[in-house]
Amino acid sequence: MKATAVQNKLKYFKYNKAKLGAKPGSIFIPKDALPTQVYEHRFNADVLEELPEATVAQARLRLAPEVGFTRWIDIRGLQNPELFDWLESDFGIHPLELEDIASRQQPKVEEQFGHLFIVARMLYLDDKVQLVNDQLSLFVVGNTLITIQETYEDVLEPVRNRLRNVLMPLRKRKSEYLAYALLDAVVDHYFLVLNDLGERMEQLENLLLTKPRREQRDQIMHLKHELLAIRRVVWPTRELANNLLRNDHLHGQDDIKIYLRDLYDHVVSLMDHAENYREISANLLDLYNTAVSNYMNEIMKVLTMISAIFIPLSFLAGLYGMNFVRESANGEPMPLNMPELYSPFGYVTVIVVMVLIALVQLLLFWKKGWFRRW
Amino acid sequence: MKATAVQNKLKYFKYNKAKLGAKPGSIFIPKDALPTQVYEHRFNADVLEELPEATVAQARLRLAPEVGFTRWIDIRGLQNPELFDWLESDFGIHPLELEDIASRQQPKVEEQFGHLFIVARMLYLDDKVQLVNDQLSLFVVGNTLITIQETYEDVLEPVRNRLRNVLMPLRKRKSEYLAYALLDAVVDHYFLVLNDLGERMEQLENLLLTKPRREQRDQIMHLKHELLAIRRVVWPTRELANNLLRNDHLHGQDDIKIYLRDLYDHVVSLMDHAENYREISANLLDLYNTAVSNYMNEIMKVLTMISAIFIPLSFLAGLYGMNFVRESANGEPMPLNMPELYSPFGYVTVIVVMVLIALVQLLLFWKKGWFRRW
Amino acid sequence: MKATAVQNKLKYFKYNKAKLGAKPGSIFIPKDALPTQVYEHRFNADVLEELPEATVAQARLRLAPEVGFTRWIDIRGLQNPELFDWLESDFGIHPLELEDIASRQQPKVEEQFGHLFIVARMLYLDDKVQLVNDQLSLFVVGNTLITIQETYEDVLEPVRNRLRNVLMPLRKRKSEYLAYALLDAVVDHYFLVLNDLGERMEQLENLLLTKPRREQRDQIMHLKHELLAIRRVVWPTRELANNLLRNDHLHGQDDIKIYLRDLYDHVVSLMDHAENYREISANLLDLYNTAVSNYMNEIMKVLTMISAIFIPLSFLAGLYGMNFVRESANGEPMPLNMPELYSPFGYVTVIVVMVLIALVQLLLFWKKGWFRRW
Amino acid sequence: MKATAVQNKLKYFKYNKAKLGAKPGSIFIPKDALPTQVYEHRFNADVLEELPEATVAQARLRLAPEVGFTRWIDIRGLQNPELFDWLESDFGIHPLELEDIASRQQPKVEEQFGHLFIVARMLYLDDKVQLVNDQLSLFVVGNTLITIQETYEDVLEPVRNRLRNVLMPLRKRKSEYLAYALLDAVVDHYFLVLNDLGERMEQLENLLLTKPRREQRDQIMHLKHELLAIRRVVWPTRELANNLLRNDHLHGQDDIKIYLRDLYDHVVSLMDHAENYREISANLLDLYNTAVSNYMNEIMKVLTMISAIFIPLSFLAGLYGMNFVRESANGEPMPLNMPELYSPFGYVTVIVVMVLIALVQLLLFWKKGWFRRW
Amino acid sequence: MKATAVQNKLKYFKYNKAKLGAKPGSIFIPKDALPTQVYEHRFNADVLEELPEATVAQARLRLAPEVGFTRWIDIRGLQNPELFDWLESDFGIHPLELEDIASRQQPKVEEQFGHLFIVARMLYLDDKVQLVNDQLSLFVVGNTLITIQETYEDVLEPVRNRLRNVLMPLRKRKSEYLAYALLDAVVDHYFLVLNDLGERMEQLENLLLTKPRREQRDQIMHLKHELLAIRRVVWPTRELANNLLRNDHLHGQDDIKIYLRDLYDHVVSLMDHAENYREISANLLDLYNTAVSNYMNEIMKVLTMISAIFIPLSFLAGLYGMNFVRESANGEPMPLNMPELYSPFGYVTVIVVMVLIALVQLLLFWKKGWFRRW
Repeated sequence: MKATAVQNKLKYFKYNKAKLGAKPGSIFIPKDALPTQVYEHRFNADVLEELPEATVAQARLRLAPEVGFTRWIDIRGLQNPELFDWLESDFGIHPLELEDIASRQQPKVEEQFGHLFIVARMLYLDDKVQLVNDQLSLFVVGNTLITIQETYEDVLEPVRNRLRNVLMPLRKRKSEYLAYALLDAVVDHYFLVLNDLGERMEQLENLLLTKPRREQRDQIMHLKHELLAIRRVVWPTRELANNLLRNDHLHGQDDIKIYLRDLYDHVVSLMDHAENYREISANLLDLYNTAVSNYMNEIMKVLTMISAIFIPLSFLAGLYGMNFVRESANGEPMPLNMPELYSPFGYVTVIVVMVLIALVQLLLFWKKGWFRRW
Repeated sequence: MKATAVQNKLKYFKYNKAKLGAKPGSIFIPKDALPTQVYEHRFNADVLEELPEATVAQARLRLAPEVGFTRWIDIRGLQNPELFDWLESDFGIHPLELEDIASRQQPKVEEQFGHLFIVARMLYLDDKVQLVNDQLSLFVVGNTLITIQETYEDVLEPVRNRLRNVLMPLRKRKSEYLAYALLDAVVDHYFLVLNDLGERMEQLENLLLTKPRREQRDQIMHLKHELLAIRRVVWPTRELANNLLRNDHLHGQDDIKIYLRDLYDHVVSLMDHAENYREISANLLDLYNTAVSNYMNEIMKVLTMISAIFIPLSFLAGLYGMNFVRESANGEPMPLNMPELYSPFGYVTVIVVMVLIALVQLLLFWKKGWFRRW
Repeated sequence: MKATAVQNKLKYFKYNKAKLGAKPGSIFIPKDALPTQVYEHRFNADVLEELPEATVAQARLRLAPEVGFTRWIDIRGLQNPELFDWLESDFGIHPLELEDIASRQQPKVEEQFGHLFIVARMLYLDDKVQLVNDQLSLFVVGNTLITIQETYEDVLEPVRNRLRNVLMPLRKRKSEYLAYALLDAVVDHYFLVLNDLGERMEQLENLLLTKPRREQRDQIMHLKHELLAIRRVVWPTRELANNLLRNDHLHGQDDIKIYLRDLYDHVVSLMDHAENYREISANLLDLYNTAVSNYMNEIMKVLTMISAIFIPLSFLAGLYGMNFVRESANGEPMPLNMPELYSPFGYVTVIVVMVLIALVQLLLFWKKGWFRRW
Repeated sequence: MKATAVQNKLKYFKYNKAKLGAKPGSIFIPKDALPTQVYEHRFNADVLEELPEATVAQARLRLAPEVGFTRWIDIRGLQNPELFDWLESDFGIHPLELEDIASRQQPKVEEQFGHLFIVARMLYLDDKVQLVNDQLSLFVVGNTLITIQETYEDVLEPVRNRLRNVLMPLRKRKSEYLAYALLDAVVDHYFLVLNDLGERMEQLENLLLTKPRREQRDQIMHLKHELLAIRRVVWPTRELANNLLRNDHLHGQDDIKIYLRDLYDHVVSLMDHAENYREISANLLDLYNTAVSNYMNEIMKVLTMISAIFIPLSFLAGLYGMNFVRESANGEPMPLNMPELYSPFGYVTVIVVMVLIALVQLLLFWKKGWFRRW
Repeated sequence: MKATAVQNKLKYFKYNKAKLGAKPGSIFIPKDALPTQVYEHRFNADVLEELPEATVAQARLRLAPEVGFTRWIDIRGLQNPELFDWLESDFGIHPLELEDIASRQQPKVEEQFGHLFIVARMLYLDDKVQLVNDQLSLFVVGNTLITIQETYEDVLEPVRNRLRNVLMPLRKRKSEYLAYALLDAVVDHYFLVLNDLGERMEQLENLLLTKPRREQRDQIMHLKHELLAIRRVVWPTRELANNLLRNDHLHGQDDIKIYLRDLYDHVVSLMDHAENYREISANLLDLYNTAVSNYMNEIMKVLTMISAIFIPLSFLAGLYGMNFVRESANGEPMPLNMPELYSPFGYVTVIVVMVLIALVQLLLFWKKGWFRRW
C-alpha cells in the first residue's frame, strides 16, 4: 500500500479551517493549487483559432471573438486569485459559484444567474496508475464555454482533437453542445477506469483461487475504496445528466436532447457495472477469507491427526519406561510390577499394539472423511 | 472452474479503449464479431416466404414485399460494417441506435425517430452448459421487424416454427405482435435458465447436507454469479415490459395490451423466483460454512478429548520413569526417593489410577454433552 | 429433513419445458394433476342446493339455476382438459386466464373480460404436518362464483358450513361477497400456519438455550424456508387486497368495502408478524451459532488448561528420566551429571515443585477469569 | 431468562383457532380476559363527577349526563360479553370494531361509522420490571370518549389527576382533546420505557468492556427483543399521529392541530431514539463477541507459547531417557550409543541448551509481538 | 475510554420522569442547566451596540431599539425560569415552543405563531477534545432574532466578529439573514468536526496496517458512535435546510434563497462525507478483525508445526526409553525385546531417522505453502 497518500486523498476529506465562519462566497484557494494557465479555442464551421497558453492577466486583455464564433476558455490550475476576479467581472460568475470552483463539490448542475453552471468530476489513472479525482467546472455563458480544472492533466484531449478536424460535426456546434461533448468525454473515461478496475479484479480473483496471500487482502481493500470513490462520483452524475435533460437552457439546440438521453443511458449503465463490481468485490473478500480459513483448517487437521495418533502411542511408550522394580530390597520378587517387561514377546506385542492403534485411528479418520478436502 | 473465461465475460465488463472521446454515435464493432448473415421472413395469413441466407449486400438488393405482407429481417453477427450503413439509409435507424446495437446495452425500449427500438437480452445455455448472455435488438419500422443478434444461436426457433404453421394466429398479425412474440420467447427462456439453476441448487443442497467438499464452495460462487447475471437482465426487462405497456406505438393493435400485461406478469414472476433463489443461494453458503465448521469442531473435539485424557496419564508414566536413586553412593538408603517404585502393588495401583482418571474424564465429557453432535 | 421433497417443491420452481415458445394462452396441465371433480352450491336466503360430485362432462349438462340464486361452482383437480374448454365456452374465461389456472401464479386480481379473476394461494399443513401451498383461482362471472383448486383438500370448509346454516348472513349475499368470504377463510388460515410456525420457533428457542444440537440447525433452516414461502404468499396478497379495495366490480355490494378493509388490515397484520418472525429466526441462527461456539470455547479452555498445567510437569518428569551416568567407564565420578537424582530429598522436592507449578498456574487462570463461563 | 413467558408473549403471536372461518365481526374473548370493570368521569369546566366502579349491567342503566358535560367511559377487562352488546347498541360501535377490541391490533385510526376509532398500545413496565404491551381502544362518539383496555393497570393516571384539578385547561375541553391527552400520556410512557432500556444498555456496555460473561449475551438478546417490540409499536403510532393530523373529525377543535403536531414530533423523536438504540444494541453484540474472542485468543496464545517452549525441551529430555546400551552382551564397547550420557558435562550442557532454546523462543515471541494485548 | 460519561450522553437518551403525563407545554428545566446570561447586539449599517451581559430581569427592562435596528438577543443557559415567562409575554413564543427549548429536539423549522422557529444543533469539540452536541434554538420575531443555547461555549463567534466589522455586508441585513449566517456557521463547524474525525480515522488506519492493538478496537467503537451522533444531527439538518428553502417567511429578503441553496448544498455534501466515513469505519473494524485473526493464525501455525514435528520424535525417544529387559529372571536371553538398543549403530540410526522425519515434514509444510504469509 505505497499509494496511501493518494488513496487517502480520495478517502478522507480535508477541511480548510480558515473557512470557519467566513462569509458565504469567500474563496479559499487550496494550498497545493497549481499556477493558472489559460488556453482558448475559438471556432466556427470553417476556422479554428487555438490561442497560445497565457496567464490570467494576458487572457483578460484579449478581445472577444467575432460574431458567429464559439469560444472555449480552458483554464487549468487555481493558484492565481485574479482568475476569480476576471470570472466575476467579465462573465458574471457569482461569488458562491466561485467558491464552488475552489472547493471540492459533488457533481451538480445549476442555472441561476443567467448562465449554466455544471460541476463534473474527472476520474483518470495518472502515470503512477493512481486514481485521480479532479474537478471540472463548466460555465456556459452565451456562446462562450469556460472550463476550470485543478490539474494540468485531463481527459478532454479527444474533444480537442475533434475540434481540430474540420470534418467533425462538433465544429458547427454552439457552446452548449461543446459542454455536452466534454461531459461525454468525462463519462467515457469512467468506463476506462472501471475497465481497469475490472481487469485487476479478474487477476486477483484468479490468484485467490490458486494461492491466497496477505497482500491480496490489502489489494481487495484498495479496490473497495476505489470503487467507493467511483460510485460517489457516478451516482450524482446520473442526477446531473437527468437535470440537464430537464433543463431549459440546453434545449435551445435542436437535437441535443437525444444526445443527453444517450449520456444518461451511459451513466445508468456505469451505475449498473459499478454496482455489479461492488457485489463481486464483496465476494472477493469472502473468497480470501474462505481460502485462508481453508488453509487453517487443513493445518489444524494435520495437527489433530498427528496428535491424536501419537499421544496414545507416546503414553504407551512412557508406560513401559516406568521404573517399577521387580524385586524388593530384600530380593523378594514382586511379580505384579510390570510383568510385561519380563515377557519375551513384550516388546513385539507393544509394537504391534501401537501399529494397530495407529491403523484403527487412520481408518476412523478416513471413514469420517477427514482426509477429504473441504 | 474451467469455465472461467465464459464466466468472466458475464461478470466483468470490457471497454473498447478506441471509443474514448469518439464522437457520439460512432460504431465500434467488437473484435470477436461473427460474419453477418441476413435471413428474412415475409408472411401474411396465407403465404410465408422464407428467403435464403444472404450477405448484407445481397439483402440490400431485395425488393420490398407486396402490400399486406409482414416482413421480418433476421440479422445474425455484426462483423460487416455495411450492415450499419444499410440500417441507417434504408430504415432510418439513428447512429446512436446503431451504436447501441454494437455495444452491450441494458434491456430498454425507446421510441424516438418514428420507430420502436427495443433492446432485450437472450439468456440460454450453450452446448457446453455455459450461460450465454446475448443481445437482441429489435426495430419495428412500419410493418417491418428487424432483429439483430450477435451470435448465430438463439432462442427464437419456436417462433419461427409457429410462423411456418399456417394455423397459428401469429400469421395474421403485424410486426408489433411479432416483436411481442419474440420477446415472449426470450422471457420464456429465462424460466428455462432459472429452472436449470434451480435443479443444480437442489442437487448441491442435498450434497451439502450429506458430504461437504471444497468444490461445492466454488460451485456456490459460480451459482451466485450466474444468478447475479440473470437478475441484471431480468430487472430492466420488467422496466422494458412496463414501458411497452404504456407505449402508444404498440397499442394500435387491438388486444396486444392483454398479451403485454401477461408478459409483464411473467417477468414479475421471474423476479420473484430469482429473488427467492438469491436467498436460497445465501443459505447454501451458510450451509457450506456451517458444515465445514461442524467438521472442524468434531475434529477439535476428538483432539481435545484424546489430549485431555492422555496428557495426565503420560505425565504419571513419565513421573515413574524418573531415575531418582534409592541408595546414596555410600549405600545409605534414601527411602523418600520414589518409594512407590519399590512397593509390590505400585504398578497395579498406577494402572488402576490411570484407568480411573480416564473414566472420570470420559464421564465428565459425557455429562457436559461433548459426545453429542452439535 | 425427511420432508425434502415437499420442501423443495416450496423452494424450487419447476418449469415445464414444453411451454417454451408455445403461443400465449397455451394450457399445460401439470403431470401430477388430480382427476377433476366438480361440486356446486346454489343458494338464496331460503334454499341451499348442494349438487353431488360430478365430472366435467356431467357438470356441463346441468341447467343454470333459477333467477335469484347465487351459484358456486367448486372445481378440484386439473387433469381433465375438457374443464378448460367448458370454462372458456360457457363462462367466457380467456385463454390467458386459463393458462394462469394451470400454472403457478402469484396472488393477483384482474378485471379484464367482463368478469373478476382472482388468484389466491391457500397455505395449510397437511396430515404429515407439511406446509402445502395450493393455488385457488376465483372467477366472479355475474352471480356465479367459480373456484378452481389443484388438490382435493382445502381451507374452505368453514365457509361451506356457514352456507349450510340458514341463519348466516352469507346466505343472503351475492357471488362477490362469497368470494370475499373465501378469501377471508384463506387469509385466516395464514394466521393458523404462522401460529404453528411460532410455536415451533418458541420450542426451538427454549431448546437452544438449554442444549444445542445439530438437528436444530436443520430445523432453523427449515423454518426459514417455510417463512420465506409464507412471505412470498402474504406480500402479493396485500397487493391483492388493496386492488380489490380499489376495484369497481365489488363495490356494487353496499358494505363490502368495510369487510375488504378488514381483510386488508388482517393481511397487513400478517406481514407484521411474518416480518417479526423473520428477525426472530435470524436471531435463532445466531443463538445456535453462539451456543455451539460457546461449547467449543469451553472445550478449548479445558484442553488449554490441562495442557498448560501438565506440559511443564511432564517436562520435569522427563528431565529426571534422563540416563546421564554418574560414573565414567573408568569409575571416575562425574558429580555434575544429575546430582538431584542422588539427593535424599530429590524426589520429594520435585513433587513439591510440580504441585507448586500446578497451583500457581491454576491461580493465574482463576485470576484471568478463565474459570468463569462466558 | 426467567421472564420467558412474558417475553414470548411479546414475541410470538397466538392465534385463536376457533376464529378460523368464523364470520367477520365474530368476537372471540381471550381466555385470560379479566372481569370487566366500568369507570366513568363526567366533567365540565366547573364540575367533575367520578362514578364508582360498576359492572357492565350497572353501567348500562346509568342515564346520560346533562348537556355540556364531557363523558369518559373507562372500561378495563374484556371478560363480560355483555360489554360488546352494550357498545354496539348504545354507542353504535360496528361488529368489526368490536372484533378489533378483542384481538391484538396494530395502532391505527379509523373514522367509518360516524365516530372516531383509535387503537393505541400502552407499553409499561409492570411491578416485576417486565415490559407489558397492552391495547387501548378509544372511541370518540359525540362528546363521549370510550376507552377499553385489557388489564387493570395503565399509564393514564396522570391524565385522571389533571382532570381532578379544576385549574387544568383539560377540564374545559371536549372528548376529542381528552382522547389526545390520553394518547399523549401513552406516548410519553414510551419515552419512559426507552429510558429504562437505555439505562440497562449503558450498564451492560460498561460491564462488557470490563468483564464479559455468558449472561450478558442473553441480556443483549432480551434487549433486542424488547427493542423490536417497541419499534413494532412506535412505527405504526407515527402513522396514527399522522392520520390524526389529517383527520377532519378532530379539527373541529380550534388549536388541537398544534398539539397533534407536537404529538407527531414526539413520536418521530421516539423513532429516532429507537433506531439509535438498535444500532447500539448491534454494537453491543459485536462487543460481546469480540470480548469473548479476545479471551479465547489470549488462552490460545498461552497454550501455544507453553506448548511451543516445552515440546522441544521434553523431546530433548526424552531423547536422553533412551536406553541404548553402551556395551554389547559380550562386553564390547559401543561408543556411538549415546556418548553424551557418559560425558562429565553432559547434563549441564543439556540444561544450558534447554534454557537457551526457551530464551530464544521467548525472544522470538516477544519480537513478533505475541505478548502484546490485541 | 475515559470519556464514557460525555460519550454516553451522546448515545443514550435521558428522560425526565417528572414529565410523564404533564400537560403539553409544561417546561422542565434540566437539572444541570447553567445560570442564564443574556447578551444583546443591536445594529444597522452604521452602528453596532453590544449591550453588556445581563440577567433575565435586567434584560426585560431594556427598551426596544430604534426603528431600523436589527436586534439579536443571545441567551445562554436555561436555569432561570423567568426566561420562559419573558419569551412568552414579550415575544409571543408559544408554550409548546418553550417546551422544545428546554428539551432535546431534532433539528427542525416551524412557522406557526407569526414567527419563525428553528432548532439547530451545534457540534463542536470542547477543550478536552470531547464531542459536544448542544442545542441552538432560533426565533425570528419581526426584526429581532432570539437565540437560546444550553452552554456558554458556542460556534458563533465568527459571526459576532463579522458583525463587529462595519465593512461586512452582514451589517446591512435583517434578522432573517443573521439567522441564516448563524446556521451557516453551525453547519461549517460540522465540517470541522468531520475533518477531525477523518484525521483520527486516517491515523488509526495506518496503525492497524502496521501493529494492531486492543485499544484500537475501542477507538473504532468510539469513532462509530461519534459518527452515529453526527449523522443523527446532519440528516434532519438537510430537512431543515430544505424546509427553509421552501419557507415563505425568509423569502422576503431578495437574494437569501441563493444563500439557502448554498447551505443546502453544504449539508448534502456533509451527508455524502459522513456516509463515506461510515463505510470506511466499517472497513476499519474488518481490518482490525482480520489483523487479529492473521496474528492468531500465525500463532496457530507455529504451534502446529512445532507440535507436528516434535510429537513423532518424542514418541520415538519414548519408545526407546522403555524398559523391556533382554534377559529373563533366569538369565535366558529374550532377543525380541528391543534389539535396537543393543546394536552398535542404534542411537545414530535413531538420530538420523529423527532428522529425516523432521526434514520431510518441513519439506511438506513448505510445499503446502504454510511458510507463506496469508
